[in-house]
Amino acid sequence: MVVLLKSGTKAEQIENLKSWLQGMNIGTYISEGTSHTIIGLVGDTSMVDMDLLRSLDIVENVQRIQEPFKNANRKFHNEDLVVDINGIKIGGGNFQIIAGPCSVESREQIIEVAGRVKAAGANLLRGGAFKPRTSPYAFQGMGSDGLDLLMEAKKETGMPIVTEIMNAVHLPLFENVDVIQVGARNMQNFEMLKELGKTDKVILLKRGLANTIDEWLMSAEYIMAGGNQNIILCERGIRTFETRTRNTLDLGAIPVVKKLTHLPIVVDPSHALGYSYMVEPMAIAATAAGADGLMIEVHNNPAKALCDGPQSLTPDAFDELSKAVYAVRPFAAKYEY
Amino acid sequence: MVVLLKSGTKAEQIENLKSWLQGMNIGTYISEGTSHTIIGLVGDTSMVDMDLLRSLDIVENVQRIQEPFKNANRKFHNEDLVVDINGIKIGGGNFQIIAGPCSVESREQIIEVAGRVKAAGANLLRGGAFKPRTSPYAFQGMGSDGLDLLMEAKKETGMPIVTEIMNAVHLPLFENVDVIQVGARNMQNFEMLKELGKTDKVILLKRGLANTIDEWLMSAEYIMAGGNQNIILCERGIRTFETRTRNTLDLGAIPVVKKLTHLPIVVDPSHALGYSYMVEPMAIAATAAGADGLMIEVHNNPAKALCDGPQSLTPDAFDELSKAVYAVRPFAAKYEY
Amino acid sequence: MVVLLKSGTKAEQIENLKSWLQGMNIGTYISEGTSHTIIGLVGDTSMVDMDLLRSLDIVENVQRIQEPFKNANRKFHNEDLVVDINGIKIGGGNFQIIAGPCSVESREQIIEVAGRVKAAGANLLRGGAFKPRTSPYAFQGMGSDGLDLLMEAKKETGMPIVTEIMNAVHLPLFENVDVIQVGARNMQNFEMLKELGKTDKVILLKRGLANTIDEWLMSAEYIMAGGNQNIILCERGIRTFETRTRNTLDLGAIPVVKKLTHLPIVVDPSHALGYSYMVEPMAIAATAAGADGLMIEVHNNPAKALCDGPQSLTPDAFDELSKAVYAVRPFAAKYEY
Amino acid sequence: MVVLLKSGTKAEQIENLKSWLQGMNIGTYISEGTSHTIIGLVGDTSMVDMDLLRSLDIVENVQRIQEPFKNANRKFHNEDLVVDINGIKIGGGNFQIIAGPCSVESREQIIEVAGRVKAAGANLLRGGAFKPRTSPYAFQGMGSDGLDLLMEAKKETGMPIVTEIMNAVHLPLFENVDVIQVGARNMQNFEMLKELGKTDKVILLKRGLANTIDEWLMSAEYIMAGGNQNIILCERGIRTFETRTRNTLDLGAIPVVKKLTHLPIVVDPSHALGYSYMVEPMAIAATAAGADGLMIEVHNNPAKALCDGPQSLTPDAFDELSKAVYAVRPFAAKYEY
Repeated sequence: MVVLLKSGTKAEQIENLKSWLQGMNIGTYISEGTSHTIIGLVGDTSMVDMDLLRSLDIVENVQRIQEPFKNANRKFHNEDLVVDINGIKIGGGNFQIIAGPCSVESREQIIEVAGRVKAAGANLLRGGAFKPRTSPYAFQGMGSDGLDLLMEAKKETGMPIVTEIMNAVHLPLFENVDVIQVGARNMQNFEMLKELGKTDKVILLKRGLANTIDEWLMSAEYIMAGGNQNIILCERGIRTFETRTRNTLDLGAIPVVKKLTHLPIVVDPSHALGYSYMVEPMAIAATAAGADGLMIEVHNNPAKALCDGPQSLTPDAFDELSKAVYAVRPFAAKYEY
Repeated sequence: MVVLLKSGTKAEQIENLKSWLQGMNIGTYISEGTSHTIIGLVGDTSMVDMDLLRSLDIVENVQRIQEPFKNANRKFHNEDLVVDINGIKIGGGNFQIIAGPCSVESREQIIEVAGRVKAAGANLLRGGAFKPRTSPYAFQGMGSDGLDLLMEAKKETGMPIVTEIMNAVHLPLFENVDVIQVGARNMQNFEMLKELGKTDKVILLKRGLANTIDEWLMSAEYIMAGGNQNIILCERGIRTFETRTRNTLDLGAIPVVKKLTHLPIVVDPSHALGYSYMVEPMAIAATAAGADGLMIEVHNNPAKALCDGPQSLTPDAFDELSKAVYAVRPFAAKYEY
Repeated sequence: MVVLLKSGTKAEQIENLKSWLQGMNIGTYISEGTSHTIIGLVGDTSMVDMDLLRSLDIVENVQRIQEPFKNANRKFHNEDLVVDINGIKIGGGNFQIIAGPCSVESREQIIEVAGRVKAAGANLLRGGAFKPRTSPYAFQGMGSDGLDLLMEAKKETGMPIVTEIMNAVHLPLFENVDVIQVGARNMQNFEMLKELGKTDKVILLKRGLANTIDEWLMSAEYIMAGGNQNIILCERGIRTFETRTRNTLDLGAIPVVKKLTHLPIVVDPSHALGYSYMVEPMAIAATAAGADGLMIEVHNNPAKALCDGPQSLTPDAFDELSKAVYAVRPFAAKYEY
Repeated sequence: MVVLLKSGTKAEQIENLKSWLQGMNIGTYISEGTSHTIIGLVGDTSMVDMDLLRSLDIVENVQRIQEPFKNANRKFHNEDLVVDINGIKIGGGNFQIIAGPCSVESREQIIEVAGRVKAAGANLLRGGAFKPRTSPYAFQGMGSDGLDLLMEAKKETGMPIVTEIMNAVHLPLFENVDVIQVGARNMQNFEMLKELGKTDKVILLKRGLANTIDEWLMSAEYIMAGGNQNIILCERGIRTFETRTRNTLDLGAIPVVKKLTHLPIVVDPSHALGYSYMVEPMAIAATAAGADGLMIEVHNNPAKALCDGPQSLTPDAFDELSKAVYAVRPFAAKYEY
């Protein structure tokens, strides 16, 4: 970290700052320029509050040299993290498709969809039991009954389960869940992140709608600081002014994430784009960009099409998507650090 | 709600849609145009999922006529809500300043600041005990000890307390807190909103960084649907591309909120702007725009200025702000509905 | 277009509205619902001002059924437009790479880069002669001398030239330019678009940093309304809150554009991302998403590396990118309408 | 400007960088830290391209200490600029309201509106003759005939005229216009800015929808670098995700602008918000925030209300707004630098 002091700063003020930093075990070196003085900070600066430093009367600006995350930082973990979920691996060259319905609705539904997506090449089953909904009057999911049905589908198909948690109090219910998803709206629910850090579950951490990549990695750091290193990042679109797509899928996040961290990253085009006709092209694009996996919404229910969201594919459409994705996968961008 | 069907929709499909809607107690009237058919929905459409309707093959577009919130809707509550906090009223023409430090740090600090801001015209005391921090390594607040110190300050000064909750599990600790703040990052922590809906506490609900005004009111609706009608909205800036301010304070939200809901709205310029020199002008502007109150960060600690954030005012600066705000208040925009 | 009237609208007011619309050759059909009246508009509504309609006291909301663009609308032009530039085709299954330096700097530079990118698989040469710069003190390009050097490079290599225009007054200088680029900052320079509409030049129309896809197509419509149908769209990133990339590349625009219009779309990852290490993965992703081409910045100057932008690739890096792009191209998303 | 070099940079590379900078008359001082070397730049760094520096292999980051604008920089122009328009002063404590219709439509209309707004306290008359429209099929303004009508209104009322230019080629037509407006979409039409810099007209420079405050000041710098110092800035809202308002009015820009530059700033709430019911409260708020003036759309035509935009006020509503604004003005935020 480098601190640029305002011109006219007095020696005494600089001494005060130095001793305050020393109290946090931060060493300093001073460099006097013609008009400005610069202080370099030496030591573990991840605990130094940049905003606080910047607020000081004598400080013109503060510049980080090192990222404020450590556990999630590729500089300290050069090897790609390979997350192992009952033998299904993601990261370090391993690519997986997670697929399934938006919400678990019935035993029949989840088992039928599970069978179809498995046959088409998905290796993990997703399905919502606890659903975050903007409106208190919308369907909130089947809750623990939904989790039970997911367990049945797991038994039937052998597929590991990915499902969202909305409240750390529910953690005991997630004992047999393989991958716990943290939704975009909870990416900065720091209290829940801390609880997840105490478990040994694989966490799929979605990026918040208005969160920078750095904030996303700091949320991963919250979980990792608690001891749980099994994180999969999930890009799902950010909020912008464009209204033709539900959100703006930020595939540029993939090379940035690959450079900054060793954690695997999967992409969810279904929620990002919001319309089914966009899902396949963006799934192909995300794969080509070098994502470590995809998360795709698939519904069945040909007879009761009324209850499926605009972003869900039919199983037949998923068959096609899966073929297209596995065809492009060998030609995907590669990252080496 | 008005549903525009695609051209070429068959009579049978329309019948299916009608009977599905009837199953939700929604009546319909059909209007055949030259190229399109329109279906008007009659009844309580707040439970109808627009996205779901829009996803149907036969639907071109869906248009809400009524807002999806009821408890928070001015159409059903024409009178401004006046929230009463131990005799301190906000809304319906009552204007209050909430002031205090970012974090509670010590008994001395909170009591000194409380005394100063009360003398200057603030009627409620704010102070963080549980602090949401982007980094797991940053100071997370004093927790329940901080709440105890706030209680002492309340005893000493008689000022009601406003402080943030980050986890519904902590609710028992907030028994003597007068106003429970929901932070921007938890605006869509729906599980916590539901718990707060079961209490009778006054809730100060901050707008999320990337949330529309409609989403904000839907979060208020979550709390109100549970039975708790004591909500104060708090605008604190939204995330945009501009970097000279920490966030972009959206004062245009005030007339919109006043039109849509009877709930009072206060403005927090300290967090929105992020630099102390901007706080006073924006406090004056928010007051003039017709806000029902302000929330201002004030620190003391003249000797240890190192530990204060860039957005905090000194007590002396707060004195000036308060005078300027009360001077402009009589000339503020008025709203009548 | 469908107009939803407020409840309580009088018959006389509806008659006024109808006759005003008839004055614009717009027919109407009226549908009376239980609480609202709906007016359907029949005829060429592209000239009806939605904002104006929405502003009327009696109007609750207005909904377009048809897009306001005609020349650029796939509904009226089902076949993909194939733009032919001296035999080099873009669109309708034809994919091309446009490559070259940010600015033309010297005869040597442009001819050397042209040779390298041609050898590597680029079929069109880009190079800036007139440069839009945020600062008046930054290098503004070589102007007409730069255009002359581009012509020499064209003669030498046979590659058609793509270069930016910043002022319609310069049009005579662009006589021998093959593709005239309209930059992001001029996407809504309507006066210049009108002038370009009078030419028969191929126009490469970049999307503005804060422009919706609909606004972008309306800018294409400006040119096409003047008679010039030879438009290539170019996605180059939109402005968001994320700071790790210069802009956010919106690849989701590709399926949207493919659905709405028959015009070809190319992608410029160099300007969108802003850092060279991101260019290759995003070029691969854009290709996989089904873009009709790419636009890539390449510099030479191994000895004087000081003068190259962060987003430019070396010719060697471009060789690799080109191979990767052509490898993924056969597996790209396909669109059929 | 301070350049932070990557660790491992060789002495020879540093020497190359130093001599390259010396070639631009930029002196340097070097400071060696434990892990990083820092180079301070001395001299006129406004011409140094930060992006270019940042792109060098050996550079970790670059930090400006001084803003890249000089003519528009308060550091070099401590006194507020007072712009004098035929005796009507804006800036340095002088506050003015600019009012008038969106478009000039007829002699009657413009003269009637002019009379009404003058009587209500406006001192400058606005009216569009050349209109930027998203659609080529929308009314594009009366052009030079509209300018003639504005001149008649000026003769009749004595009010100076503010009207928009869309093409530098039209400059001769603007000979008798008092204030030339540059619209948001042309804020970075650098070619036009250069032409305006050669005139001695007062320029009202609107902020672009997606432009930072720094970019806005750089556009002012373009005009000032050409010799024309008579600039009035105009905040008119930025583009965000919120849809309840047309744009998000950024009043926080006022304290930032006041700190960075000596140029006056006015606020246009009509275009920013887009709905007439929001205009008065935001006009009051902008005044209270310390704006040097307002720009307000007013229509007449009570009989033909069909042709007025949603953001326009009636003359009666403007009377009220004006009273409210002048009542709050004495209590507005004050800035001293």
